[in-house]
This record gives sequence, C-alpha cells and structure tokens, in this order.
Amino acid sequence: MNRRETGMEKNIIDVLARRASVRAYDKERPLPQGVLEKLLTAAMQAPTTGNMQLYSVIITDSTDGKERLKQLHFGQPMAADCAALLTFCADVHRFGRWCAARKAQSGLDNGGGMLMAMEDAVIFAQQFVTLAEAEGLGTCYLGTVPYNIEAFAKELNLPSGVMPLFSVAVGYPAGERPAPSDRLPLEAVMHHEKYRRPAADDIDAWYSAKEALPESVRFIAENGKETLAQVYADVRYPRAQNEKIAADLVPFFFC
Amino acid sequence: MNRRETGMEKNIIDVLARRASVRAYDKERPLPQGVLEKLLTAAMQAPTTGNMQLYSVIITDSTDGKERLKQLHFGQPMAADCAALLTFCADVHRFGRWCAARKAQSGLDNGGGMLMAMEDAVIFAQQFVTLAEAEGLGTCYLGTVPYNIEAFAKELNLPSGVMPLFSVAVGYPAGERPAPSDRLPLEAVMHHEKYRRPAADDIDAWYSAKEALPESVRFIAENGKETLAQVYADVRYPRAQNEKIAADLVPFFFC
Repeated sequence: MNRRETGMEKNIIDVLARRASVRAYDKERPLPQGVLEKLLTAAMQAPTTGNMQLYSVIITDSTDGKERLKQLHFGQPMAADCAALLTFCADVHRFGRWCAARKAQSGLDNGGGMLMAMEDAVIFAQQFVTLAEAEGLGTCYLGTVPYNIEAFAKELNLPSGVMPLFSVAVGYPAGERPAPSDRLPLEAVMHHEKYRRPAADDIDAWYSAKEALPESVRFIAENGKETLAQVYADVRYPRAQNEKIAADLVPFFFC
Repeated sequence: MNRRETGMEKNIIDVLARRASVRAYDKERPLPQGVLEKLLTAAMQAPTTGNMQLYSVIITDSTDGKERLKQLHFGQPMAADCAALLTFCADVHRFGRWCAARKAQSGLDNGGGMLMAMEDAVIFAQQFVTLAEAEGLGTCYLGTVPYNIEAFAKELNLPSGVMPLFSVAVGYPAGERPAPSDRLPLEAVMHHEKYRRPAADDIDAWYSAKEALPESVRFIAENGKETLAQVYADVRYPRAQNEKIAADLVPFFFC
C-alpha cells in the first residue's frame, strides 16, 4: 500500500462517518457540465450480479419534469429545488432485449431476477451517492416512489421489467451542511456467528438515547402519542400503507 | 470547500472508478483488531429509511462457521478463505421488538416494510464495501444466499422478519489486485427524463464490446452455445432457478 492510498483511506472513512443527507438545495446553482456522467460512469464500477448491470437511472433536470415528480413525491420541495432528480430502477428489460436479439430467452422476468436487479440498482445508487458527496454535492434519497409506483412508471415511460425504487435529489446545499443523524449503537445491528434476539434490556439500551432526543420528544408531543415507537408505527409507517405498497409492488416484482 | 476536501474528492472518484471485487484471499492474514467495528460504525451513517436502520449483519469468522456457510454457498472457496464473511440481512424484527416494548404495534412485517428493509440493508452493505476497500481490504459479494435462503436462515438463527440477502467476503487479497471488470457504456443505463427503449442497433452498440472479450468467447465455447446471452439465460441464470428463488422468497418478503 503506498502513501497516497494510506492518506486517502483516512479521509474516506472520516468523511463517510460524518455524512448527512441534504434536504435544502441552492436553487440557483446548477451542476457543472458533465458531472453526472462522470460520477455515474465511476459508480458503474460498483459490484453487480454476474456483471449484468440490472439497473437504469432516469435523470430529471427540467423544471417541468421535476415539478411533475415533486407532485408524485407528495410535494416534497427538494424534488424540485435540487439540480437533478435521479430515479433509480431495477431493470431486467434491457437484459431481456439483449437475449431476444441473440437467440436466447431471458429467465429474469420474475421475482428471482427482480431480487438481483433491486440489489444491483441499490448498490449502483449508493455508489453514486458516495461519489456525489465526495464531489462536494448534497444528496437525499426520496423513498416515496413505492407509494405511487404506477404513476412513477407511467410518468417515466417505464416498460415491463423496470421497477422504480426511489429518487435521489442531487445539488449544492443551501446554507450549512446538516449534522450527521443519530444512529443505534453498533451492537444493535452487528451479530457474531448467530443472530442474537434482543432482550427487553437490549431494547432499552439501544433505543433510549434516540427516544431522549429533543426532536423525538417533540414528535411524540406533536402527534399526541405516548412513545416514539407509536409515532413510527401509527403515523409515519402504518400497516395499511405498507400493505398497499406490498400489493402495488407485486406486478413489478413478479413481472 | 477547503483544500483538503478537494484533494480527497479526486482520490475517491479515482479509486472507486478502478475498484474490482477480490476472489482470492490471503488465508494467513487476519483483519486488524477492531477494524470491522470501525468500518461498520462508519457505514451506519449511510442513508436509511426514516432513520430506522432496518438491517442486521452477521459476522462469521470462525473456521467452522465459514466452512458451514461455504457449503451453503455451493463450495465457493472464498467463503472460507476470506478473513470474515458478513451476511447482510433486511431486518424488521428489531423494529418490531422495539414497538412491542413501547405500547406500539409494528406495521412493517409485510412486503412494504421488507422493501424498505432490503434497500436499507443494501445501502449499508455497499457503504461498508466502499469503506473496507478504502482501508486496503478486498471484498466480494456472494449472491448465492437466495438459492438456499431457508438453510441460511436456519444456520444463522434468524427470527421471523429477518431476510438474509447476500454475504460479503472481506480480507487481504492474495497476490495482485484484479483489474476492473468491463461495463456497458453509460448510455445503456442512463436515461434523460423518459426511459428510452433500446432499438436493435442500441443492443448491438452496447453489448458488442462485451461479447468480443476473450473470456466471453471462451464461455460460449465451453458451454457449447452460440451466443453469450445464451450462456447467461440457459446456463448461469436459467428461468427455473429464478422462479424457485422467487417462490422461496415469498415467506421472507411477505413475512
């Protein structure tokens, strides 16, 4: 390992350990010409199943296009305020077209193929996010695509075999960069050899710091709830909503 | 942006653009004490849905444990030769236990919750991979977990609501680092505003370089096929296998 690599390592780890999503963008500052192409090209070197690259990304940077996607994202301002909105998709369509043009028949247009494609697409997206942040840009995942998955597919003209997963907002931050978010202690997510089921004491130890944050206390009060978990379970991610997402997902996943 | 950040940016982009998966590990060289904990802690700052961290990682570094997982990974040598094998899981179990301990009922134990958990887990895994590579380690995704998903769940003692996705081998490379793999041209995966369906000419333009690689020509000959697409569709990723994966997935995904 040479000295240059050693210096870089410290920087990457340090920077990624301090990263935070950016939700407010400088609307007046466009991306440098060619920067998305440069970052996406580098991101394509991320690992991919059998080197098939079962993903696509749709770049939306027109004012009209971002405004339409903002509506589908429940009006979240950053969808239109960012310089570009990138919608990442699991994609077995292109592979299928390749097979059809080469006397073969793709076997990926089903849940097994789509599982690989989803993993490929998320790996590609996260590599892009890391690269964009290294370039000095801010990013934020918008996880609201599954709530309107059919409308996104129609708006982006997606063929069968292409499943939109999420959008990523990209642009220069407005004002100061946000501080990193709180996280659970590592022991909550890391297991050794076997999965260790949490005891009641573990739950208290892992979640009490999060529950005590001023913003958590405020969420509980604002929503008239007794616990932070109730805010998550009843208000933010209620069962009926997730079951609807699951039902809407089926024709895309088992395509 | 200060000078230090500017210098770092070039390094990250340069390094990630040249990265490659490592399939041969130095069996004699263990990981430095505490390095996995350091890298996983930094990786936890990666984006996660609503800051729920719907993932877990199981570290297998005992000789016996790696050997058992190697068998489930169809005997791939790197599963046992690496210093540690990390199996990343989508996890709505811990969140459910938190809710149950806080007078709430999780609504994530279904396909909608599992979709978020899968994305969270893959983002976390890829951030770990980037950090591990920056640390000078080699990594390789083993995508064979879904082929034996129930056996992995049993071996790792996974409760309901925890879906194993893939393992990542980590260790010091044996010998020279491999060269980066070929990739499709960017225009094959990047779309502007709308998805552009490939024409026959596009398929030829995007896939001809891959098809002409010496290793592709060899794969075709070794498998007695006419085209590279036939090797992928008939031999490597056949329909029946993917449909079995999809069927086995259902109880994990719609948990």
